[in-house]
Amino acid sequence: MNALFHNYKLTIAYDGTAYCGWQIQPNGVSIQQLIQEKTSILTRVPTSVIGSGRTDAGVHAFGQIAHFHSPELKDLYRFHGSLNALLPPDIRILNVEEVPHTFHARYSATGKTYHYRLHLDRVPDPFKRFYSLHVREKINLDLLKAAALSFLGTHDFTSFANEGHQGSASKDGVRTLARLDVVNEPGGVRLEFTGDGFLYKMVRNIVGTLLEVASGKRLIEDLPNILMAKDRAAAGQAAPPHGLCLVKVDYPRNDS
Amino acid sequence: MNALFHNYKLTIAYDGTAYCGWQIQPNGVSIQQLIQEKTSILTRVPTSVIGSGRTDAGVHAFGQIAHFHSPELKDLYRFHGSLNALLPPDIRILNVEEVPHTFHARYSATGKTYHYRLHLDRVPDPFKRFYSLHVREKINLDLLKAAALSFLGTHDFTSFANEGHQGSASKDGVRTLARLDVVNEPGGVRLEFTGDGFLYKMVRNIVGTLLEVASGKRLIEDLPNILMAKDRAAAGQAAPPHGLCLVKVDYPRNDS
Repeated sequence: MNALFHNYKLTIAYDGTAYCGWQIQPNGVSIQQLIQEKTSILTRVPTSVIGSGRTDAGVHAFGQIAHFHSPELKDLYRFHGSLNALLPPDIRILNVEEVPHTFHARYSATGKTYHYRLHLDRVPDPFKRFYSLHVREKINLDLLKAAALSFLGTHDFTSFANEGHQGSASKDGVRTLARLDVVNEPGGVRLEFTGDGFLYKMVRNIVGTLLEVASGKRLIEDLPNILMAKDRAAAGQAAPPHGLCLVKVDYPRNDS
Repeated sequence: MNALFHNYKLTIAYDGTAYCGWQIQPNGVSIQQLIQEKTSILTRVPTSVIGSGRTDAGVHAFGQIAHFHSPELKDLYRFHGSLNALLPPDIRILNVEEVPHTFHARYSATGKTYHYRLHLDRVPDPFKRFYSLHVREKINLDLLKAAALSFLGTHDFTSFANEGHQGSASKDGVRTLARLDVVNEPGGVRLEFTGDGFLYKMVRNIVGTLLEVASGKRLIEDLPNILMAKDRAAAGQAAPPHGLCLVKVDYPRNDS
């Protein structure tokens, strides 16, 4: 088949500290904008780089996925090296591959994994200051783990969604959280979320609410009521962005 | 005993990226200077903060030790919190304790442990860019491990010392390296050095030379000759500072 354009999939890692987020915005430098500028230079045509979804300012990624259409790239290995050479060191393209025209970074996605890191030492570790939330107050990790179970499965997560144009096709707030594991790591824990989709700020709102339970500010028994309320005001505050990292985006096996 | 002053030991972690190094210098902000400013504010007397040794610009620490003399601090816990509140988040005081007057951060030290990190993935990990050296060329890890053995034990390390006023009491270059382990970690390796003392830039010069061997630029058989030459020009280039971290300083048990 001799198509007029080809479809390329990028796997991207970035330290979000310096950026206004993934998505192009009028004020501030975004990751999408920088990558799009460089792919446009290298392909010599204006290129739209479409991500699997936005990440907010300060949020990181180790497996963000994007696609773009372009005339054929004869040497992908070289293109990959040139793209990284043009990008700043806090954004790295981990992989470039050609994919079928049917692949769309956002619409083909069937699931995502996010990690949210907490560090719990009395003195915050200076090396974690941009990558993990330091929790000052004493929290009960057993309670945190027990509370996390309330979110597993299929629920209407409207109470944990901020308003925002996430661009999701479905207008309702029903999502399935397949996994929410609390994994110990040196000095703290990592909350691992895997689901079929996430509403805007859903992970950070769940983490904020879990922290309120684990620090005794809110009862674990209230969690089902918060879900049932379908009201953002019922849940806790969003945890700050810097603890969050988009780790993986899932696609159907034959479409990536 | 009612001493006129007390002796306090600080355990310090810092991200060295933004600083000209530990030591106070005419141009640039040093870690020593910042800590000294803040201890002087809190103790209300001009304070000299003496470190176990310098670290260069870009070098990190997770267990740097320093001491200072001061009128008695009645509430060490509160002093600790206030000191961290005054310092920037890339410098954290991990511990403050009172120690005998005989304790001196530099002269009492009996050994040190440094880690040097290498990451070896084809695409550099953006989260490691300030904390680990990305090695572009293919290196042979077995050769690296074998070459590391040549440095173990007691040698004259003059070939691996840059000129500089490290302030060591001994003028000769004989040091004992008790341990040089190459430990696997995700995406790379960590070289762990423990010795009774290190000459100026010794760790970075050894790492640079090991990398030349592991990448085939230099023969492993030449290492004994390089040591015997006692000539800085005989050894390889210094590895860059950002992979290096001062992890631990040892003191005699009854003196810390």
